[in-house]
Amino acid sequence: MDGEYKVERVKSGIPGLDELVDGGFPKNTTILVTGSTGTGKTTFGAQFIYKGAAEYGEPGVFVTLEERAQDLRRETKTFGWDFKKYEEEGLIAIIDGVSSTVGLPSEEKFVLEDRLNVENFLRYIYRVVKTINAKRLVIDSVPSIAFRLKEEAQIREVLLKLNTILLEMGVTSILTTEAPDPKAGKISRYGIEEYISRGLILLDFRERDVELKRYLLIRKMRETKHSMRKYPFEITNKGIVVYPSGEMY
Amino acid sequence: MDGEYKVERVKSGIPGLDELVDGGFPKNTTILVTGSTGTGKTTFGAQFIYKGAAEYGEPGVFVTLEERAQDLRRETKTFGWDFKKYEEEGLIAIIDGVSSTVGLPSEEKFVLEDRLNVENFLRYIYRVVKTINAKRLVIDSVPSIAFRLKEEAQIREVLLKLNTILLEMGVTSILTTEAPDPKAGKISRYGIEEYISRGLILLDFRERDVELKRYLLIRKMRETKHSMRKYPFEITNKGIVVYPSGEMY
Amino acid sequence: MDGEYKVERVKSGIPGLDELVDGGFPKNTTILVTGSTGTGKTTFGAQFIYKGAAEYGEPGVFVTLEERAQDLRRETKTFGWDFKKYEEEGLIAIIDGVSSTVGLPSEEKFVLEDRLNVENFLRYIYRVVKTINAKRLVIDSVPSIAFRLKEEAQIREVLLKLNTILLEMGVTSILTTEAPDPKAGKISRYGIEEYISRGLILLDFRERDVELKRYLLIRKMRETKHSMRKYPFEITNKGIVVYPSGEMY
Amino acid sequence: MDGEYKVERVKSGIPGLDELVDGGFPKNTTILVTGSTGTGKTTFGAQFIYKGAAEYGEPGVFVTLEERAQDLRRETKTFGWDFKKYEEEGLIAIIDGVSSTVGLPSEEKFVLEDRLNVENFLRYIYRVVKTINAKRLVIDSVPSIAFRLKEEAQIREVLLKLNTILLEMGVTSILTTEAPDPKAGKISRYGIEEYISRGLILLDFRERDVELKRYLLIRKMRETKHSMRKYPFEITNKGIVVYPSGEMY
Amino acid sequence: MDGEYKVERVKSGIPGLDELVDGGFPKNTTILVTGSTGTGKTTFGAQFIYKGAAEYGEPGVFVTLEERAQDLRRETKTFGWDFKKYEEEGLIAIIDGVSSTVGLPSEEKFVLEDRLNVENFLRYIYRVVKTINAKRLVIDSVPSIAFRLKEEAQIREVLLKLNTILLEMGVTSILTTEAPDPKAGKISRYGIEEYISRGLILLDFRERDVELKRYLLIRKMRETKHSMRKYPFEITNKGIVVYPSGEMY
Amino acid sequence: MDGEYKVERVKSGIPGLDELVDGGFPKNTTILVTGSTGTGKTTFGAQFIYKGAAEYGEPGVFVTLEERAQDLRRETKTFGWDFKKYEEEGLIAIIDGVSSTVGLPSEEKFVLEDRLNVENFLRYIYRVVKTINAKRLVIDSVPSIAFRLKEEAQIREVLLKLNTILLEMGVTSILTTEAPDPKAGKISRYGIEEYISRGLILLDFRERDVELKRYLLIRKMRETKHSMRKYPFEITNKGIVVYPSGEMY
Repeated sequence: MDGEYKVERVKSGIPGLDELVDGGFPKNTTILVTGSTGTGKTTFGAQFIYKGAAEYGEPGVFVTLEERAQDLRRETKTFGWDFKKYEEEGLIAIIDGVSSTVGLPSEEKFVLEDRLNVENFLRYIYRVVKTINAKRLVIDSVPSIAFRLKEEAQIREVLLKLNTILLEMGVTSILTTEAPDPKAGKISRYGIEEYISRGLILLDFRERDVELKRYLLIRKMRETKHSMRKYPFEITNKGIVVYPSGEMY
Repeated sequence: MDGEYKVERVKSGIPGLDELVDGGFPKNTTILVTGSTGTGKTTFGAQFIYKGAAEYGEPGVFVTLEERAQDLRRETKTFGWDFKKYEEEGLIAIIDGVSSTVGLPSEEKFVLEDRLNVENFLRYIYRVVKTINAKRLVIDSVPSIAFRLKEEAQIREVLLKLNTILLEMGVTSILTTEAPDPKAGKISRYGIEEYISRGLILLDFRERDVELKRYLLIRKMRETKHSMRKYPFEITNKGIVVYPSGEMY
Repeated sequence: MDGEYKVERVKSGIPGLDELVDGGFPKNTTILVTGSTGTGKTTFGAQFIYKGAAEYGEPGVFVTLEERAQDLRRETKTFGWDFKKYEEEGLIAIIDGVSSTVGLPSEEKFVLEDRLNVENFLRYIYRVVKTINAKRLVIDSVPSIAFRLKEEAQIREVLLKLNTILLEMGVTSILTTEAPDPKAGKISRYGIEEYISRGLILLDFRERDVELKRYLLIRKMRETKHSMRKYPFEITNKGIVVYPSGEMY
Repeated sequence: MDGEYKVERVKSGIPGLDELVDGGFPKNTTILVTGSTGTGKTTFGAQFIYKGAAEYGEPGVFVTLEERAQDLRRETKTFGWDFKKYEEEGLIAIIDGVSSTVGLPSEEKFVLEDRLNVENFLRYIYRVVKTINAKRLVIDSVPSIAFRLKEEAQIREVLLKLNTILLEMGVTSILTTEAPDPKAGKISRYGIEEYISRGLILLDFRERDVELKRYLLIRKMRETKHSMRKYPFEITNKGIVVYPSGEMY
Repeated sequence: MDGEYKVERVKSGIPGLDELVDGGFPKNTTILVTGSTGTGKTTFGAQFIYKGAAEYGEPGVFVTLEERAQDLRRETKTFGWDFKKYEEEGLIAIIDGVSSTVGLPSEEKFVLEDRLNVENFLRYIYRVVKTINAKRLVIDSVPSIAFRLKEEAQIREVLLKLNTILLEMGVTSILTTEAPDPKAGKISRYGIEEYISRGLILLDFRERDVELKRYLLIRKMRETKHSMRKYPFEITNKGIVVYPSGEMY
Repeated sequence: MDGEYKVERVKSGIPGLDELVDGGFPKNTTILVTGSTGTGKTTFGAQFIYKGAAEYGEPGVFVTLEERAQDLRRETKTFGWDFKKYEEEGLIAIIDGVSSTVGLPSEEKFVLEDRLNVENFLRYIYRVVKTINAKRLVIDSVPSIAFRLKEEAQIREVLLKLNTILLEMGVTSILTTEAPDPKAGKISRYGIEEYISRGLILLDFRERDVELKRYLLIRKMRETKHSMRKYPFEITNKGIVVYPSGEMY
C-alpha cells in the first residue's frame, strides 16, 4: 500500500496497441471489444489468444459461439497462424459452442453442450481454463450467450455474473459484442455491456472519400492511463496492426 | 500448415468484382448480399448461378422465395440469359418456394413445400444440392424464411444453423436480405444477419444531382483481403457490371 | 429464347412517363405506386385505368378502398374524365370497397362485400377482371387491405399472395401504398411492399423556396431499363403530366 | 358531364385563404386541419363556423371535444365574435362533448353523452346537423374521438366511416388533428388521418431569428387546384388572416 | 357582448413576463410550464404562488408531488422567500403529496393521502382551494399524477378532467411537466399535455460557446395576444427574471 | 428566516469543482452524476467518499453494485488512495452489493444481501450510515437497483422513495446513472432520474480532432447558484481534476 502501486500488465499481442494503454492490459481485467460487422472483433480476440501462446507462452482459451472451431482455424491460417500446433502443445484450447447448438456432431476436444445456462456455461469454461492453466480468455460473442434473455434485468444479471466470475478466475478476458450504430452512440448490442465491463475498445470505420478506413478507440480502461485518440489500424496478412502515430483523415 | 496457405477461389461471374476480393470469393463461404429495394440483389444472385453454369461449368441451385421460378426465368431473359437451357442440362436447379405458399399449383421440377420449418427447408435444399452436385447456392431471401419468427433469439438460432449447415454442405452461398436504411446503419432486416455471415456485400444508391447511382461495397469477407472502397456498378443489358476504376461523385 | 428477347409494353397513359421506362410498363407486371399524402397516387391509378380505356381501348378495373366510386367519379371530372361513359361501354369497372365497410347501401354494379379476407378479395377481383376481360388493374390502396393484419408475417404472406396471383391473372397492375417518410427511407407503410413488388414508383415533394414541387422517381422496374432520375411532374387540369426534360432545382 | 365541369365552392371565412384554393373549399368535402399545439387549429375551425353564419348565412355545427362550449365562446370573444347571438338565431350549434366525459353537469342545448361509440357519435351529429340544416361542420378534434382505439385497424375503420358518412351528410367539414412533429414528417397523430381525408391544411411555425412565425400549407385538396406554397398567417384580434402575397423568410 | 371585450389579468409575479402576455395571464386559465430538468419549472411555480401572496395578496395553493413541503420551503429560502410566514397568514397552502407516498410521516397541515386516484386528488385540492379561498394553484408535476396510467386513453381522460375541473374551480393554474427533448419537438412527457392545456410556456437551454443559457418561449396562450419570441431569463438570488429586451445570441 | 439565509456546504473533494457551485455542494442534498461509459462516474463517487474521509474527516458510505469492494479498492490504488486504511479507522464503509447477487462468498464487513427490495436496501444502508455516523453516501449505480422494475410507474416510485429517504437520513448523497446518448438529450437511463434528483452533474466527452476530451456540466443544483458552462476535466494519477478556467475547443 505504501510506495508506488504498480499494475501488472498483459501484452495484447497486437502491434502498436500496448503503448496506448501504458504497456499492456491491466492483468486480470475484462475488456469488451465492440464494433459493427466486419470491423475485426473476432480477429482481435484470436490474435490475443494466438500471440499470447506463440510469443508470450501464456495459455489461452477461445470460446467460439458464432462459427465452428474449424472455421476459426481455417480463416486464421490466412494470417499465417497455426492454432492447431498450440492446441496440441496444450497452450490453446478452442471451445466449440456452435456444433451442438446447430445439431451437428463435433470432433472437437472441447465442446460446449449448453450455452444458454450461464452457470453451466461458466462452469465449463472454468474447467477448461484450469485444464490448460489459462491466463487469457476470449468469449466471441456476448450476444451469442445473451440472445435468449428477453429482459434488461436478466441481461444485466448475466453480464454482472459473467464479469465478476471471470475476474475471480484470474484470467485476462476479452468479450466481443456487436455495435449496431456507433455513430449514434449505440456501441453495444444491449446498451448495458459497456457499463459493466472494466475496459472498452471500439473498432469502427470512418469513410474517407469513398473508402472505409478502420480505426480503434479505447473508450475505457480501469486501472490504467490510456489514450483517448482514434488510431488507424489495418488487418494485414499478419493480423491486426495499430498505428499509434498514424494519421486519421 | 507450413508454406504459404492458399485460399481457393470461386469466380463471381460479375465483371469487375473478382479483382476486389483477391481473385474471387473464398470457396465454401457464405456471403450476405444486402440492399434496399431495386438495388439488384436478385440479379446479383441469379448472375452468380447463371454464370457459374454457363462460364465455369459449376452446377448451382437458386432458391426463389419471393417470385416464382417462371418469373425469374422471364426477367433474366432481358439479360440474354437462358436458365431453361442449363436447367435441362442439369447444371442449374431452381427451387420454387412461392407456389405452394400462395396456394397455386406448380409445374416446376423442384418445389419447396414447407419453407417455414428450417430443418425441412435445409434438408430439401441439401437434397437438391446433392442431386445436381451443386457448388453454388443462392437463397433469395433471408426475410422470406425468417419472417415468421418473432424473436431475436429464434432468428439468431435459425441464421446460425443456416450458416453453419451451408458451410457443411460444401457450397459457396449467397443469401440476400433487405436493408431498411443503409444510411442510418440499418444494413439488414433483423440487424443480426451481417454478424453471422462470413461475407457482406452492400448494394446501395447514392444521389448525384437528382439521379440515383448504384454502388457496391464489400463490408466484410473472411479469409481474404478485400477492398473497402465504394465502387459504381450498373445493371446493363448483360447483367451487373462493377467498375473497379470507376469514380464515385 | 433465340434471337433478341422483346418485352411487351403497356402504355401508362401518363404523358412523359413511358419514355422513362423504355416505352411503357412491362406487360403483366405489378407496380407499387407510393407517396405521402397529396402526392397524386389515386390520380395516377385513375389515369392509368381511364386512359387505358379511352386511348388504348384496354379494359381496366379500379378497386377503390378509401373512397366511394361516386367520389372517385366526381373528383376525376375535374380532369375532364368521364368514367361513367366507359363503365357503360364495359371498358371500365369500378369496384366499390367502401360502402359495405362503413355500412352504407351501395348502388354500384360492383360491390366488394368483404375486403378483409384476402382469398375472397382476390376471388371477387378475378371475377370482375374476367367479366370485362380487363388488361389493367388498380388497387387503391394496399394498407386498406392489410391494416387488419397485425404481424409482419401475415402482411408478407398476403402481399406475396396478392402479387403472385395478380401476375397469374394476366393483368398489368398498380397498387398504391402510403410512404410515411420518404426522406428517411420509409417509402412504404409496412416496409415490405417494395421488396415484394416488381416495380416501384415514388411520388414525392421537394421544397423549393417555400413551395412544394412534385417529382417522380422510378426506383425499380423488373424486365426493363428505366431511368433513375427524379423528374418533375404536375397535376394539371388534364391529369398528371411528367416532364422528362424538366429540371429539378 | 358535357361542357366544363364546375366545382361548387364554400367560403372559408378566413381572409386570404380562398384565393389559394381557387375560390373556396370544394363543397361537401372533408378537410383535415393539422398542426402542433398553439398553431391555431381551434380558431381556424371556429372562424369557419362563425363567419359561415355571420357573413354567408350558412348554418354550422361545432363539435367541441377538448374544451367546454362556454370556454370556446369566451375565448372567441377576444376576436369580437359573438357565438351566442348566432346560436340563438339557430345559425350555429355548439355540441358540448366535454362535460359528460368529465362528469360535470352541462346547461348546453346540445350535449354529447357518449363520444366513444362512433356510430352514436355520428348519429347525434347527424341529428343536430338536420336540426339547424347545417352546411358546415367542425369536429375538434379527431384524437378526442379516436384515443380509446388501440390499434391502427380500428382507427382506420373509424376514420373511413367518419369521412364517408360526413360526405353523405352533405356538409363541408373540418376535422382537426395533432401534428407531433411536422418537421420530421409526422403531420398527424396517427399517421393515417391525412390519407383518408380529402383535404389537408397544415398550420405550423417557422423560427426566424428567435421568433416563431406562423405559416399555412395546403398539402392536399381534391377536386380543386391549390397552391403548394407556404404562406404566412397571423392570429389577429379579428381572427386568422392569411397573407397570400406575404413573404416567408 | 357589445363594446370591447376585456380579459381580466393575473400577475405572474415574474419580472418581465407579464408584458409578454398583454399584461398578465388571462384569469382562470390553465398554463402548462414545461422544460427539461434544471430549467426552473418548480421555481416558476413557487414564484407564482409566493409573489401572488406577498405582492398581490392573492391566496394560492402549491401541490408538491416530487419533493416534500419542507424541501420546497428550504430551497426557496435561497431566493429570500418565506413561505412559512404566508402559510401562517393563510395566504399560502402547500399540499404535501410526497410523504404518504414514500411511507414517511408528515407534520404538514395539508397532506395528500392518495394521489393516484384523480377524483380523490381533485376533490382534496378543491377542499384546500376553498379553505384558503385560493385564486392561484400550482401542481408540480403532471407526470407525478399520470405516471401510473399506462395508456394514452387514460392519460388523455385524466388531463381533460384535470383541466376542465380546474377551470370550474375558478383558479388560475400552473401545471408543470417534463420535456424529454424540446429540440426534437418532444415538449411534454406524454405528447398530449400541450394539446389539452390552454397555455404553454417552454423553459429551455440554448448553448452559447460552451455555456448553457436559459430562455423562455410562450408557445400558446388562449384569450390573449402573446409574443412568440424566445426571451432570455435567469434564476437570480431573487428568483426568476425574464429579460424582454434581452438578446438571444 | 430573517437576515440572509446561508446554505451549508459540503466539499466535493474534487479540485476545481467547489468553486463552480458557490463553495461546495449544499449540505444534505442528493446529486445525480450521469455519463456514458468511461466518463469517470465511479471515480467521481469514490473521490467524494475518499477525500471526505482523508481531507475533511467526514465519514462516508460507498454502495458498490457493479463491481466488488475489492475491485474498487484495487482500481483506486492507482490514484494513490488507500481505502482500506480509512475503512479500518471507521471513516469509510464499502457495502458490497455484488457478491451475493452473483453467488460468490464475500469476506466484506458490509454485505448487501438483497438489493432488489428497495425498502430492505434503504434499511440496510440506513444501518451502515448510522454505524459509522456517515455524512456522505454514494450509490453506484441507480440502474443496478432499478433494473428489475419494468414500468415507469415503479421506477418513478422507487426513485422518489430513494431520494426522499436519503434526504431524511441527513447525508449528502451522490447517485450515479447511465447516460445512453447525452448528445441526443438522453442523459439518464430511464429519463426520469434527472427530474427527481436535486442536483445533476453530467460527465461527457467531446471530440477534438480525433481525440475524446472530457468535460463536466452542472445542469441543475437546487439551493445554490452554479455555473452552467462546460468545463474540461481529467482523470489524473491523483484522481479527477476540474479546470474551471480551462478552455473547451
